[in-house]
Amino acid sequence: MEKLRISIEEHRQRQEKLLEELERRNLSGACLFGSVAIKYLTGFSFIPTERPMAFVLTKNEAVMYVPKLEEEHCLIGTALDRSVAYPEYPGERHAIYTLKDLLIEMNLDEAKIGVDANGYPHIFGYEGPSLTEMLPKIETENVSYHIVKMRMIKSENEIELIKASSKWGDRVHELLQKYTIPGVSEIQVSMRASMEATREMIETLGDRYVAMGGRGVSAGYRGQIGAHSALPHSQPINAIFQPGDTLVTGAGGDLGGYHSELERTMFVGEPSEDQIKYFNLMYEAQQIAFEAIKPGEPYSVVDEAVRDFFDKNYLWDYWRHHQGHNIGLEGHEAPFFDIGDDSIMKPGMVVSVEPGIYVPGLGGFRHSDTGVITEDGFEIVTHYPRELKDLICG
Amino acid sequence: MEKLRISIEEHRQRQEKLLEELERRNLSGACLFGSVAIKYLTGFSFIPTERPMAFVLTKNEAVMYVPKLEEEHCLIGTALDRSVAYPEYPGERHAIYTLKDLLIEMNLDEAKIGVDANGYPHIFGYEGPSLTEMLPKIETENVSYHIVKMRMIKSENEIELIKASSKWGDRVHELLQKYTIPGVSEIQVSMRASMEATREMIETLGDRYVAMGGRGVSAGYRGQIGAHSALPHSQPINAIFQPGDTLVTGAGGDLGGYHSELERTMFVGEPSEDQIKYFNLMYEAQQIAFEAIKPGEPYSVVDEAVRDFFDKNYLWDYWRHHQGHNIGLEGHEAPFFDIGDDSIMKPGMVVSVEPGIYVPGLGGFRHSDTGVITEDGFEIVTHYPRELKDLICG
Repeated sequence: MEKLRISIEEHRQRQEKLLEELERRNLSGACLFGSVAIKYLTGFSFIPTERPMAFVLTKNEAVMYVPKLEEEHCLIGTALDRSVAYPEYPGERHAIYTLKDLLIEMNLDEAKIGVDANGYPHIFGYEGPSLTEMLPKIETENVSYHIVKMRMIKSENEIELIKASSKWGDRVHELLQKYTIPGVSEIQVSMRASMEATREMIETLGDRYVAMGGRGVSAGYRGQIGAHSALPHSQPINAIFQPGDTLVTGAGGDLGGYHSELERTMFVGEPSEDQIKYFNLMYEAQQIAFEAIKPGEPYSVVDEAVRDFFDKNYLWDYWRHHQGHNIGLEGHEAPFFDIGDDSIMKPGMVVSVEPGIYVPGLGGFRHSDTGVITEDGFEIVTHYPRELKDLICG
Repeated sequence: MEKLRISIEEHRQRQEKLLEELERRNLSGACLFGSVAIKYLTGFSFIPTERPMAFVLTKNEAVMYVPKLEEEHCLIGTALDRSVAYPEYPGERHAIYTLKDLLIEMNLDEAKIGVDANGYPHIFGYEGPSLTEMLPKIETENVSYHIVKMRMIKSENEIELIKASSKWGDRVHELLQKYTIPGVSEIQVSMRASMEATREMIETLGDRYVAMGGRGVSAGYRGQIGAHSALPHSQPINAIFQPGDTLVTGAGGDLGGYHSELERTMFVGEPSEDQIKYFNLMYEAQQIAFEAIKPGEPYSVVDEAVRDFFDKNYLWDYWRHHQGHNIGLEGHEAPFFDIGDDSIMKPGMVVSVEPGIYVPGLGGFRHSDTGVITEDGFEIVTHYPRELKDLICG
């Protein structure tokens, strides 16, 4: 890849694949509202607001329905034939009727089409009629899970972007660890590491770096500091690092719209016996998960292997979640390393692997690594040190 | 306010108000999935993922349905009586059936209830049955727009948080302008200003600062640099500032979950005659909008006043959007300063005011200020300089 982004050609190929599925289901086209599906199929990246947008696809045309303020923007570097714009939301005539006009013009108003929702979602104060309220003769069939499934197996280019994201995730994490010392605050360390790594990335990659709505690379703690680290999905608190703190980090970057996940358990100063004990158990659990990843097996076997380890080590009081998930355009994607998920692991799937142990009062213990399922096994693409000796701060 | 956040008592009052509306509509309770509605009603802030969550409210109880990893977290500092947790998603038994159990336990399974959606949204790979698929005897009525309307008029505490956000927005913008010089990059300047202002805010506010999922204060350009500034909703590009660039900024902070909006048109070095001309027109348009804001009048009059100005000055080629929106828990909220929005301006509503002029090839021209509609007029709460002489960088 010259530029670190998915090419217009690859976006067109994705549209072709979706069109094949539509044809198989006897659907005349698709009307999609979800920003992730639209980014995946067209390369057009936007932040959803109250101004409705939709992507309308037929075998003849790929059209974006947008507010006037996105009319030009949406066509730059994207796999779109044209845009159709309404002046503004709500507008003298409600903005959504421009989508109705477009569907009529494209002969989809009395057809059966694929959708991901029956209208634009009610976010940021948006209110408006659904597709079937506007067009009573239209028939819809939900194809959103099919698009989710298309996204599960990554192309070579997607894997290259995720590897680039992992590389810069490793780098920003290095700075995060370096700046984490007693007496400084979580947000301060996080922002300093994120800023410096982003600047370094931009200088290194130059024109090859394409910001797809992302804000460079970042690393932080999301509040998982000291005893608070026992809350697995905490949010940033105004914590000051203290000797003895158990820390759980998170680092990654958005490269051409693609993500990776790197998380480490660290300690401020020398860890206690208890901290070492749970670190080692967590470390072992992650090794067991790595070894259970094999193409052709269901996702559930990874959770089963780690659950077996929890059984044997009497760890159930400290269990909070399953062992990982796919990753790509979104930070979490299906399938999941969960006892209830029988999806089959296949080459090209990219996953996070992150067993966690959460000991109230002491802290949380979790490493997360990103890797690619290959023809004969599993390739980890986050390379940050995993060993306790390398994860002491301050 | 001691801490810069909404109190548990105020969250309980919001629930009481919603319960009154439910009773008025003969609804036995509510089941809500949207994270903003849940934050508004309970104070529990979370980032939605594939793990479903819902808030179930009756006159007897306020209950959060959550994954185990949020079981403890969701009760800290929030207006909730208890949480009901499923082990994990998808789980051996699909996670959403724990919500079904809860609705049965609360005697809502054959009742008529208020909802904001017929089930958890399909995000991050989530798949599962809708409420009515799980509980065929339940009847639902959408109350999401009622909650949106409850949010329109802000309490004194909400206004105090928005003022605090505006104050730190002013400060981070000051740093953004200071660091914007030819030869440096957008992301570099943005991250430096954001980091320093956030650190200053944390040091100044100490324990009063409560991070509600926000990441401090930030300022940046979202790609609106040079000719690219003519794209009103651009996204960050890897731009290096050049003499002669027209710039459009954005700054704000999340204080206790509440937002403000501050945007300025600036120039790198002395502006050209054309740049001065459109700056002055934009400035005048914003004054016209300010003057049109009057309690008791419809939102549309503000758009009409600015449209009239566009007419008189032959500016329609450069028009891209309406004149502003409410703001609070979300960055954009209803109603809108739009010709099609006849909602009435009322004291306590907080709005952005942001007419924009976009000249292809030259740049975008937009100031945005946040203000509160009062009993007798309008109080602007962003105080950053608006005059051209104060907005020259480098």
